[in-house]
Amino acid sequence: MSILAIGTVAFDSIETPFGSAPKVLGGSATYITLAARYFSDDVRLVAVVGGDFPDEYVALLRDRGIDLAGLEVDRAGETFFWAGRYHFDLNNRDTLATRLNVLATFNPVIPEQYRDSKVVCLGNLDPTIQRRVLEQVDAPEFVICDTMNFWIENTPDALRETLRLVDCLIINDSEARELSREPNLIKAARVICGMGPRVLIIKKGEHGALLFVEGQIFSAPAFPLEDIYDPTGAGDTFAGGFAGYLARQRRYDAESLKRAVIYGSTMASYAVERFGPDRLLNLPEDEINTRVLAFRNLSTIPELEPLGSVWQSTQLV
Amino acid sequence: MSILAIGTVAFDSIETPFGSAPKVLGGSATYITLAARYFSDDVRLVAVVGGDFPDEYVALLRDRGIDLAGLEVDRAGETFFWAGRYHFDLNNRDTLATRLNVLATFNPVIPEQYRDSKVVCLGNLDPTIQRRVLEQVDAPEFVICDTMNFWIENTPDALRETLRLVDCLIINDSEARELSREPNLIKAARVICGMGPRVLIIKKGEHGALLFVEGQIFSAPAFPLEDIYDPTGAGDTFAGGFAGYLARQRRYDAESLKRAVIYGSTMASYAVERFGPDRLLNLPEDEINTRVLAFRNLSTIPELEPLGSVWQSTQLV
Repeated sequence: MSILAIGTVAFDSIETPFGSAPKVLGGSATYITLAARYFSDDVRLVAVVGGDFPDEYVALLRDRGIDLAGLEVDRAGETFFWAGRYHFDLNNRDTLATRLNVLATFNPVIPEQYRDSKVVCLGNLDPTIQRRVLEQVDAPEFVICDTMNFWIENTPDALRETLRLVDCLIINDSEARELSREPNLIKAARVICGMGPRVLIIKKGEHGALLFVEGQIFSAPAFPLEDIYDPTGAGDTFAGGFAGYLARQRRYDAESLKRAVIYGSTMASYAVERFGPDRLLNLPEDEINTRVLAFRNLSTIPELEPLGSVWQSTQLV
Repeated sequence: MSILAIGTVAFDSIETPFGSAPKVLGGSATYITLAARYFSDDVRLVAVVGGDFPDEYVALLRDRGIDLAGLEVDRAGETFFWAGRYHFDLNNRDTLATRLNVLATFNPVIPEQYRDSKVVCLGNLDPTIQRRVLEQVDAPEFVICDTMNFWIENTPDALRETLRLVDCLIINDSEARELSREPNLIKAARVICGMGPRVLIIKKGEHGALLFVEGQIFSAPAFPLEDIYDPTGAGDTFAGGFAGYLARQRRYDAESLKRAVIYGSTMASYAVERFGPDRLLNLPEDEINTRVLAFRNLSTIPELEPLGSVWQSTQLV
């Protein structure tokens, strides 16, 4: 089934303790669509790049079968650029540069043939732009929204308007605390679901993710990896795998959402194994299956017998 | 089956964003034994207190059926005292005071009738003292050891000696990184298991715990709580529930250890619901059973079907 992804297609310059990668292909829409493409053969991209964006990168996305009718090329401008440096434990990073370039004036008009998209994945962008895109889709079945602290702090009203229109918000734990003004994540989740989304996913990096849906909480671990080279795009890849699995199943109940979280986590675990999106370009399907099944072993609790009455019986003595 | 726990019995003064509790009953041996007591009717405590330790606290432990033959009272000294203040999100705390008092000269001689103890839980203490206690036990079946950054930094050689003698080490994630000098937790676990323990548990606070055993990794979430009042003693309570479950089952294979982690996590989730050990004093057995089963729902991944060939089939087009 069709997935529409809006976000950035960008250049990233990345420094990690294990090396650096200058000006590689990046951006939220890149990671979302590459990951979603493993689950759906109808993945539609909406983004803008500048005149400096190499044909080679366009070809790379097209060769993966991603629909680029919505990729606007602003010949007069330059492509969005982000540079960052990760700390020793990879859990924190410093942003070294953010150049909006063509993104500063981006006002997406989606191609006519995208209007029937069924799953919509709104990558991290100005919430007003996210909403404008959403208004151009006729009858989406499931709308997923990512955001970040910048929008929570600087455009809170626009973000609230967008949140009223989405089914699922994906944010990290510190953003959840900031958005809800509540340090306890369980309470934070309730506050955020009161803003509109009936489904909330709180990402916790190396600690996995929490899914809140229909009054249930589902805790998914991150896949334990010995070698993590570059966390860039992991969150977007999660969203892409999550959206892709849902579009494939075309079911949005709690059990399907739990499975989608595992598929999203699996795709994210591959993304971090190489610099940039390299690992997502040629991932054998049996590798995805193997890792998804390993997730079950990782967190499956063996059968538990109820505790007998050791304490109470002896307390009476 | 018998459990021997050594650690501190102490006064704690606790400040959290939700209130404060001056000079309440605390200490690692207190939390370990109170939690273990729900699983075994033979829980033996080894610790020292000063002449200022109130009879009321002694009675409280005795009334719970904890064997206090190993509780030394040093009439001339004062009881170990710790004071701390938790930050807003409860994930971090500042130590305001640590007065070793009678602990400074503690040289435990365990009662003759404790020598046959089967599960030994070495609470956080000087590793040399931990080792001396262990040497006085005839043939323990399973030895669990807790430690902290202070001993990793200040008595590394003594800690290494103790680690060679234990079956299971329980530490938190930053301590695991420090002990192994390795930022990646999976690699850190391998380094630490090379130091002696065949089982390693890495506690991650609100993010749960990782169990490493027999080449397997098991990820257990923390129980999601809306109201956490006081994290003090949560780690010791985990160790007590973990040790207690193992002593009860008298099996130490991977599946039993996974279950023990869930029981330990369950007990810890109760400990944090009140200041000090209050919640552990009268916990109905059916509440423990209910929460243990809720853990399964929290992290049970629904059946997953292998991914079909969406991507590869269309790639050939």
